Amino acid sequence: MKKRVAVVGATGIAGQQFLVALQDHPWFEVALLAASERSAGKSYAEAIRDPKTGARRWWCEEEPPQSMLPLPVHEASSLDLGGIDLVFTAVESGPARELEPVYAKTTPVVSTASAFRQEADVPLLIPGINMDHIAQIDTQKKNRDWQGYIVTQPNCTTIGLAITLRPLFDQFGLRKVIMTSMQGLSGAGRSPGVIGMDTIDNVIPFIAGEEEKVEKEGHKIFGRFEDGAIVPATFLVSATCTRVPVLEGHTEALLVSMDTPCSVEDVRAAMVGFGKEFIELGLPSSPQHMIIVHDDPFRPQPRLDRDAEDGMATSVGRLREDQTLENAVKYLLVSHNTKMGAAKGAVLTAEYLYQKGYV
Amino acid sequence: MKKRVAVVGATGIAGQQFLVALQDHPWFEVALLAASERSAGKSYAEAIRDPKTGARRWWCEEEPPQSMLPLPVHEASSLDLGGIDLVFTAVESGPARELEPVYAKTTPVVSTASAFRQEADVPLLIPGINMDHIAQIDTQKKNRDWQGYIVTQPNCTTIGLAITLRPLFDQFGLRKVIMTSMQGLSGAGRSPGVIGMDTIDNVIPFIAGEEEKVEKEGHKIFGRFEDGAIVPATFLVSATCTRVPVLEGHTEALLVSMDTPCSVEDVRAAMVGFGKEFIELGLPSSPQHMIIVHDDPFRPQPRLDRDAEDGMATSVGRLREDQTLENAVKYLLVSHNTKMGAAKGAVLTAEYLYQKGYV
Amino acid sequence: MKKRVAVVGATGIAGQQFLVALQDHPWFEVALLAASERSAGKSYAEAIRDPKTGARRWWCEEEPPQSMLPLPVHEASSLDLGGIDLVFTAVESGPARELEPVYAKTTPVVSTASAFRQEADVPLLIPGINMDHIAQIDTQKKNRDWQGYIVTQPNCTTIGLAITLRPLFDQFGLRKVIMTSMQGLSGAGRSPGVIGMDTIDNVIPFIAGEEEKVEKEGHKIFGRFEDGAIVPATFLVSATCTRVPVLEGHTEALLVSMDTPCSVEDVRAAMVGFGKEFIELGLPSSPQHMIIVHDDPFRPQPRLDRDAEDGMATSVGRLREDQTLENAVKYLLVSHNTKMGAAKGAVLTAEYLYQKGYV
Amino acid sequence: MKKRVAVVGATGIAGQQFLVALQDHPWFEVALLAASERSAGKSYAEAIRDPKTGARRWWCEEEPPQSMLPLPVHEASSLDLGGIDLVFTAVESGPARELEPVYAKTTPVVSTASAFRQEADVPLLIPGINMDHIAQIDTQKKNRDWQGYIVTQPNCTTIGLAITLRPLFDQFGLRKVIMTSMQGLSGAGRSPGVIGMDTIDNVIPFIAGEEEKVEKEGHKIFGRFEDGAIVPATFLVSATCTRVPVLEGHTEALLVSMDTPCSVEDVRAAMVGFGKEFIELGLPSSPQHMIIVHDDPFRPQPRLDRDAEDGMATSVGRLREDQTLENAVKYLLVSHNTKMGAAKGAVLTAEYLYQKGYV
Repeated sequence: MKKRVAVVGATGIAGQQFLVALQDHPWFEVALLAASERSAGKSYAEAIRDPKTGARRWWCEEEPPQSMLPLPVHEASSLDLGGIDLVFTAVESGPARELEPVYAKTTPVVSTASAFRQEADVPLLIPGINMDHIAQIDTQKKNRDWQGYIVTQPNCTTIGLAITLRPLFDQFGLRKVIMTSMQGLSGAGRSPGVIGMDTIDNVIPFIAGEEEKVEKEGHKIFGRFEDGAIVPATFLVSATCTRVPVLEGHTEALLVSMDTPCSVEDVRAAMVGFGKEFIELGLPSSPQHMIIVHDDPFRPQPRLDRDAEDGMATSVGRLREDQTLENAVKYLLVSHNTKMGAAKGAVLTAEYLYQKGYV
Repeated sequence: MKKRVAVVGATGIAGQQFLVALQDHPWFEVALLAASERSAGKSYAEAIRDPKTGARRWWCEEEPPQSMLPLPVHEASSLDLGGIDLVFTAVESGPARELEPVYAKTTPVVSTASAFRQEADVPLLIPGINMDHIAQIDTQKKNRDWQGYIVTQPNCTTIGLAITLRPLFDQFGLRKVIMTSMQGLSGAGRSPGVIGMDTIDNVIPFIAGEEEKVEKEGHKIFGRFEDGAIVPATFLVSATCTRVPVLEGHTEALLVSMDTPCSVEDVRAAMVGFGKEFIELGLPSSPQHMIIVHDDPFRPQPRLDRDAEDGMATSVGRLREDQTLENAVKYLLVSHNTKMGAAKGAVLTAEYLYQKGYV
Repeated sequence: MKKRVAVVGATGIAGQQFLVALQDHPWFEVALLAASERSAGKSYAEAIRDPKTGARRWWCEEEPPQSMLPLPVHEASSLDLGGIDLVFTAVESGPARELEPVYAKTTPVVSTASAFRQEADVPLLIPGINMDHIAQIDTQKKNRDWQGYIVTQPNCTTIGLAITLRPLFDQFGLRKVIMTSMQGLSGAGRSPGVIGMDTIDNVIPFIAGEEEKVEKEGHKIFGRFEDGAIVPATFLVSATCTRVPVLEGHTEALLVSMDTPCSVEDVRAAMVGFGKEFIELGLPSSPQHMIIVHDDPFRPQPRLDRDAEDGMATSVGRLREDQTLENAVKYLLVSHNTKMGAAKGAVLTAEYLYQKGYV
Repeated sequence: MKKRVAVVGATGIAGQQFLVALQDHPWFEVALLAASERSAGKSYAEAIRDPKTGARRWWCEEEPPQSMLPLPVHEASSLDLGGIDLVFTAVESGPARELEPVYAKTTPVVSTASAFRQEADVPLLIPGINMDHIAQIDTQKKNRDWQGYIVTQPNCTTIGLAITLRPLFDQFGLRKVIMTSMQGLSGAGRSPGVIGMDTIDNVIPFIAGEEEKVEKEGHKIFGRFEDGAIVPATFLVSATCTRVPVLEGHTEALLVSMDTPCSVEDVRAAMVGFGKEFIELGLPSSPQHMIIVHDDPFRPQPRLDRDAEDGMATSVGRLREDQTLENAVKYLLVSHNTKMGAAKGAVLTAEYLYQKGYV
């Protein structure tokens, strides 16, 4: 018997990515769709149709799962979670702050929203990176007297970053991380998201709130779980986040300074070997490699590499030493912001929770 | 009487930009066009026409100057410079290494090529940034027993960088400069330049040789002229250079660490006030502001800001403090890579040389 | 003394283009700005600033005229037109239907909206194409008992089309016009306009309502003014309108069948010679050539040709015969959809009205 | 035992698409790779590596088949076809004219080149459209005294066109076809293909030779096979071919006039039902639907629809009546120019030939 899951925010880009990630899933079955009042009461097929033009507002490369189209869309604010084992939320931060605690009273919630990421008893999880933090769940349930719980996922830009930093943190210690991102458009959502006229022959040098999230989330993710609480990591992060004319996939240019000397070869080996244990769990949405390292200096490119292992592997290239900071290397990465960086990453987290008995 | 100038490499993008920059110039008159053997013997109009398709291979936004179209194109390797006061070269490094010393025997050469940039007696000039380095010309003429001389211009990516660093170097001292560029396509030249299929929905994470140039050129540009030689500056530069789907204009994200503490307001004031003396020379191609500082966090954008003051001003935005390095600020800049960053910048240098009696 | 004009819808793309087109105008002075309730009461500088992010929402290549920034924005629905000689409206069809008749009670209105284009007594004008239709103004004023009047401008896609068809209509007679457009994004307006994610690596095959407008407007434009009314022309038009990843400029591929045989050379001569009389009026916003014909088969291209004569000339290329229809030729055109195709075209119409004593 | 096939021109875009199309093929096995002298003697992995930069020059979305990388690349002009059952050629027209007759002396050749398309005894095949033309093979072998033969595939732009026209031709008769294409970049090949600077914010209004091919090829494809020869069809085709900033996928806007009256519903039904017999052959590379008809007016879009049924189905939308021509309808189509439009289409043809005993 599959676990019955709800997807809240099912009509947005991230929600659509959830439906794709959950299609034919061996353990989970989408039993309930929810969205805002505007969509409530319609079938899913109707809810993603533009009422004025008749166009289908579907944003994934994959076609919408046929089985979802006739399902009714319920209103997120008055959801009956009877018989639901798990809720995935893919809504903005504002609604998440209202809705998630209500759901968590009875049901586990895996959230891509930023609302509860920084609360002390809420795990901020990236699959394969800090799964020991799920121990916070017990504290959280006790603190809040909930039967369910909330676990969150970081910002999509943090995810590729943290995946590639984890082996460096573990083996060499992190001191300073300087990052410039060139982010794909899908991260901005769809309506209006980034305006078409801004995306042609252009770079947009600012994404509101993004740099602060990236600079902060790493500390919690790399924090040590001690005495029921997270002791945040202390390395410094400096982020500049820009938007480029790329559909999907975030490219990030990194300069990382470490505690101990390490050669490019050391770093390469640490990245290539990273994540074996997690991969061996054999979770259905897991990549076969957490990090793919390219030697071709023209890789990674977002169009060529974002879909590596169905968007679940992070691609690294141009590994080279740097003399500007101590024990430093530079590299670029490409990460799929709406697969591992959002919905499918959250599904992978849920698979882990299920395997550990939390669902 | 205007000075008679030659443009060598007149059919390439940079050469075309020279013709635009010199159109109706008050002091200079294009008297001689030269290019490779393939174009020699044709009229300029013919030389820029694709023989197979009949298409005009012209790459500037401005139309080609009508007066240039009937001019004959001479072969660069056997040029008669009789009656020519100044040569502008816009060729690749290989040909430049052969051709420029031949021209310089008799005639001043202002070059956008990289061939002689690092020679000890050759000035590496950016207009308004290190004009005192023209004193090297005398050494060079004596060393080489030339009647003319060679002055060079740095890589286009270095130019915007150095312009914005100059006021920081002067007022606060530079320690470390960490830069990620998102460069426009025109910098790669035209045939084939960047292949169309690589530029859609993509970022190219590597530009061969570019990072080394950027990391090295700053030291010479900011060097102190002492006892007839340049003592290079010693700050550290770390560059990551990428190509994005932008036609013209280089965007650069910077993190700069300085010797002395300075607030964002200090840096802003230093940039806004920078270059008054040079601007007051009133040179024909000079911008009215060396640096334009934006407060709108969504600026600068390459499409909106590359043409500021006809591509001769560098636009800066998102000035903010940074805790990762000592006395550090971050900002982004946009610089026009084929105006101030190439041909028109070289014309401005030539105007300075003329005013100082070197032409 | 300049005529005092109002711009209604001043904060949208078309409104902004009006401010650019009217900057330093020799005959007109912008004395009043109006927009929707949301902007009313703010200065223009504030009104075009995004309240959330602080970004300036300005969409023209040219900078906003400095003199406009401090002007107050009034509410369009309660405008005091005392002392105003002429109103330019750049609003959607819905508001235009409400607002324009109110303004026209007292004041001439030149409109880019579609609301009144098809009313029998309202001229549908393209500068240089059917200026004799201004005779409808007298009928209109009498019919409606207005002191002012409304004149309209067709859809931007119709404008380039009609300009190139006029000499063919006059010299050879039109039978059938088959057109496929590849339109720039700016025609869709700004918020949201075309969504960024739709514009990368894509063509959008549908623009709601556009084809109907194009198929209908030509009949009125080419109609004969007889006994105080327009007798519509009867040629057939078939349009397919698509959106391509181009910022500004509409490209249109045409197949035109005519009444009388005509060679490519005849058509070329008709186009090149077209519009002399109108150009000789010397109106301030007039192009020097209504139509520019290219022989280079790779022209016209929207990026290279949209700005011809500041966006007021229509560029034609690839003129060739066609055997599919009778007396047929094919060609492509590029027309600037927000210059001649919208605001600056409307200003040129207003200049004509002024010269003829209608303002 | 699988048939052993050679791929000639294996390093170009079309050749790479062949390797992808033949990966894990149930009937064919790639036993021989060939390319020009420049690549001969290298391994395939080396041959697709840029010697200067080390970059991999691979152009398909799919990764290169691992089993191909170590294979040696032979020189196309001195190929030993012993043990080879079938040759796929993916070279330019010039080399094809030299090479293909040499190969055909001993071995069947399926060609994507244009060299022999118009020869009287050479079939010009589109899978599922005119397979009865393979009867020409016998004539050809006899005429030329070859053991093998050449069959050709039309231009990629013709393929989507002819697939959608076939049911109309069969059921209603074709009179006139007026087509404007908006073609993807991959059709231009890779080096240089379309230059990056031409593809941003632009449309290129001309593709040399393309319109002539489209206008001509249809007559042969729809010709009647009679007394050992093709009697060409006589409908008229008028084509305008443009290039737009789209990576893969050709979009075509069509106006089709037919012999007999037919409603949009008739046309829709004819298209939806088309190709059943061919599909039922169950060939490995066959789509499940030859034509997919969309009701959403915003479809087909090249990015969303080019990959329908792995690029083997042609997508149609915006079916509507037209009054300009007799018995006319309009529609748009999207066809994958390097899947059904090139390599994988040729593989499908080869599968048919194999099933019919011609390989």
